[in-house]
Amino acid sequence: MSIPAGANTRIILRLEMNKQIASFAQIAAVIGESGGDIVAIDVTRSDQVTTVRDITVNVYDKKHADLIVQAAGRLAGVRVLQVSDQTFLMHIGGKIEMTPKTPIKNRDDLSRVYTPGVAQVCLAIHEKPSRAHSLTIKRNTIAVVSDGSAVLGLGNIGPEAAMPVMEGKAVLFKQFAGVDAFPICLDTQDTDEIVRIVKALAPTFGGINLEDISAPRCFEIERRLIEDLDIPVFHDDQHGTAVVLLAGLLNAVKLVGKRLEDCKVVVCGIGAAGTACTKILMAAGVRNIVGVDRNGAIASGIPYENEAWSWYAEHTNPQRLTGSLSEVIAGADVFIGVSGPGVLKIDDLKKMAQDPIVFAMANPTPEILPEEAEPYVRVMATGRSDYPNQINNVLCFPGIFRGILDCRASRVTEEMKLAAAQAIASVVTEEELNEHYIIPSVFNHSVVERVREAVIKAAIESGVARKSVPANGKVIVSL
Amino acid sequence: MSIPAGANTRIILRLEMNKQIASFAQIAAVIGESGGDIVAIDVTRSDQVTTVRDITVNVYDKKHADLIVQAAGRLAGVRVLQVSDQTFLMHIGGKIEMTPKTPIKNRDDLSRVYTPGVAQVCLAIHEKPSRAHSLTIKRNTIAVVSDGSAVLGLGNIGPEAAMPVMEGKAVLFKQFAGVDAFPICLDTQDTDEIVRIVKALAPTFGGINLEDISAPRCFEIERRLIEDLDIPVFHDDQHGTAVVLLAGLLNAVKLVGKRLEDCKVVVCGIGAAGTACTKILMAAGVRNIVGVDRNGAIASGIPYENEAWSWYAEHTNPQRLTGSLSEVIAGADVFIGVSGPGVLKIDDLKKMAQDPIVFAMANPTPEILPEEAEPYVRVMATGRSDYPNQINNVLCFPGIFRGILDCRASRVTEEMKLAAAQAIASVVTEEELNEHYIIPSVFNHSVVERVREAVIKAAIESGVARKSVPANGKVIVSL
Repeated sequence: MSIPAGANTRIILRLEMNKQIASFAQIAAVIGESGGDIVAIDVTRSDQVTTVRDITVNVYDKKHADLIVQAAGRLAGVRVLQVSDQTFLMHIGGKIEMTPKTPIKNRDDLSRVYTPGVAQVCLAIHEKPSRAHSLTIKRNTIAVVSDGSAVLGLGNIGPEAAMPVMEGKAVLFKQFAGVDAFPICLDTQDTDEIVRIVKALAPTFGGINLEDISAPRCFEIERRLIEDLDIPVFHDDQHGTAVVLLAGLLNAVKLVGKRLEDCKVVVCGIGAAGTACTKILMAAGVRNIVGVDRNGAIASGIPYENEAWSWYAEHTNPQRLTGSLSEVIAGADVFIGVSGPGVLKIDDLKKMAQDPIVFAMANPTPEILPEEAEPYVRVMATGRSDYPNQINNVLCFPGIFRGILDCRASRVTEEMKLAAAQAIASVVTEEELNEHYIIPSVFNHSVVERVREAVIKAAIESGVARKSVPANGKVIVSL
Repeated sequence: MSIPAGANTRIILRLEMNKQIASFAQIAAVIGESGGDIVAIDVTRSDQVTTVRDITVNVYDKKHADLIVQAAGRLAGVRVLQVSDQTFLMHIGGKIEMTPKTPIKNRDDLSRVYTPGVAQVCLAIHEKPSRAHSLTIKRNTIAVVSDGSAVLGLGNIGPEAAMPVMEGKAVLFKQFAGVDAFPICLDTQDTDEIVRIVKALAPTFGGINLEDISAPRCFEIERRLIEDLDIPVFHDDQHGTAVVLLAGLLNAVKLVGKRLEDCKVVVCGIGAAGTACTKILMAAGVRNIVGVDRNGAIASGIPYENEAWSWYAEHTNPQRLTGSLSEVIAGADVFIGVSGPGVLKIDDLKKMAQDPIVFAMANPTPEILPEEAEPYVRVMATGRSDYPNQINNVLCFPGIFRGILDCRASRVTEEMKLAAAQAIASVVTEEELNEHYIIPSVFNHSVVERVREAVIKAAIESGVARKSVPANGKVIVSL
């Protein structure tokens, strides 16, 4: 078995060898015979009896890796302590680091960066605290805050385990929009405590991105922080999803020749994202929205323990439809799914109005798979990168925070979110627009700049911008 | 007046000009006549009547800068909006940034750094939370936490104004020891709240450096955090100062041929630093310590409201000396000042034992100036960089946290602090040791590595190291 040319995955085997029984040559032979390509060896520990080595091997895929690990483990005197793959290796030590902007080369530098020179900067801020927006990292730094209660589709995995997601988000913020984001995972899931902590952290940051906090706590946390803080607070799972959904929908209705105002929209899954999607659709002019959760359509007149659902019942479903998803979807122009795998059936699609638009955004498995739905829908979008029309928050959060920081916004208004959605939609030109291209790729470089400009303009119009940004993009710092 | 060859300071004048009255040529002429060298001009705002320009000018010194600013301000139609000097310019936007360790170049990278690949890393940590020490920034990242209540010598200037100091500290951590430090300034000065917040922040960090928190709150905050957290908590104003002081004192007594055990030491200023200095001296074997504060010597039998002073009275001053500094200093071998400017007089020095050792560490003005003290003391140290023997925390905190992180210590023991002091002292060889060189320079590259090694060794001996560090320095990661 020879190693295929396309092999680009790499594993590191940590093997403990009994020196009297096993030799490295035997191990090398076994790995070679299994088709693995040894590219590096490190001795990590050694005593008179045993030696521990890290052996880096190029392999074809997961299955191939397993084969090699098994072969090595079968050797007498060899124990496999650990196997790391490339994703794990990339995470060792974390994915971000702090970098000084100005190196300290000598005592003169030291006296400016630190004492005694720094004292005059401290005093200038003490005299006028808003100067922190210019003279500290507050100008370009946001916190990505989670309590680990609703991480990806993994659920309540706690703060330590949530860190890799928040670090990944920080990487995206920097790389896509030059925003310095610091990941903070809190060891508490108490609403009051989280509110108090984030308020106390605010002096350091120019904005707060809440992330992966479970509903309904996320609503209260966000609402109270927005009320109490003078920097923007943005729960990305709600509003990021909502903005990108609206961007896609704006282009989808344009493509099928309908107006949002006239559409019947069914939203399936009324949690954090579903509520936020509904609110932005209402702000964008949609009038006929029906929310559906496990117990069927949410309608006024039905008593709900969940406060968010009570609000929902009062503000949506003008025809007071009741019943299951299959019932209320009849005649719908748009389906928006932020629920779970497979909840939407082909029979449901058949009941929709002409030119059905389906956003099946459950992750990783959508409400209906595109290959099943294709014969029955006009436009289909998912949350996945391996199908066309990916509804991905990465299209929103870097640009929206870039804009927020650049105009020193005090909050994110509804107008700023709508403007961001329109900006994302505008990246797809009329000539390009088609069923498989309603939303730009996350790697489209125009997105961030368009979103930034639109957000700044809307912030100024909303009266929440605290700094003017000249046309040439050069930011005016007022000390 | 021509610009001197040595001019290397730069200011930026932000001038608002009424276009109908003033011209840029007039301004350029006035600055030139005053000896300023214009090196850049930026138009930051412009309308039909006024224009705002940032004019960068090389000047000789602060006095020269003032002269130029005044001259420009006297011109009709010109208003000086703002003057920034080089220290301020270095602070614009803050002094640190976040940098991704691995750039995202394509969708494949994205799927490893973020979803979906990141999920398996999250799950691995969820399964065994201690993996956060390897797979997240916890491995190399500490928090520098302040509430802005006792910043430098500036006092209670609040969290926003404290940020430049904490950012500066983060720069030093990274540059001197490769430690990623993130500055957090809290908008609360409530002891309980600070304890709760730092505990909640702990999942993200591998250590906590408390900074510029006023006494006596700093004692309780540190004590409670050490009890409750499994990562090290280190209040640098206390222990950093104590470690470096002891390092200097070890070399000073060696130089004068005394033993610490036999010395009478007077500590002046019994706040956070004074208490910590006393404790480390006791741990190092000093038996005769007399603490002095505003009301004189602290002695048992006197009732104190301050809990820290009651402790102090019980554990020091074996001869129960009372009276003023001038009285108790008689026969002292060592004076340690962490109090205020000028509290030590020449007459006091004359009363000390033979070969007096004086550490006058008040900042920026020491308890007695070296030039005054010189004829009467054998060894003199201060906190200042413009005299020999600077007692500077920078000699301690980078190396101690480097060691802590590398061996994954759960706390900082007394033994680790002593080891750090001995390591710093050891950088000065017997051949080099003299009255003007008892402590290495902050730019001496050996310091961090010596301190790191000593701290790791002591951590292992204290049983608080959670990771073995092989002799070659390659860290063994156990997943």
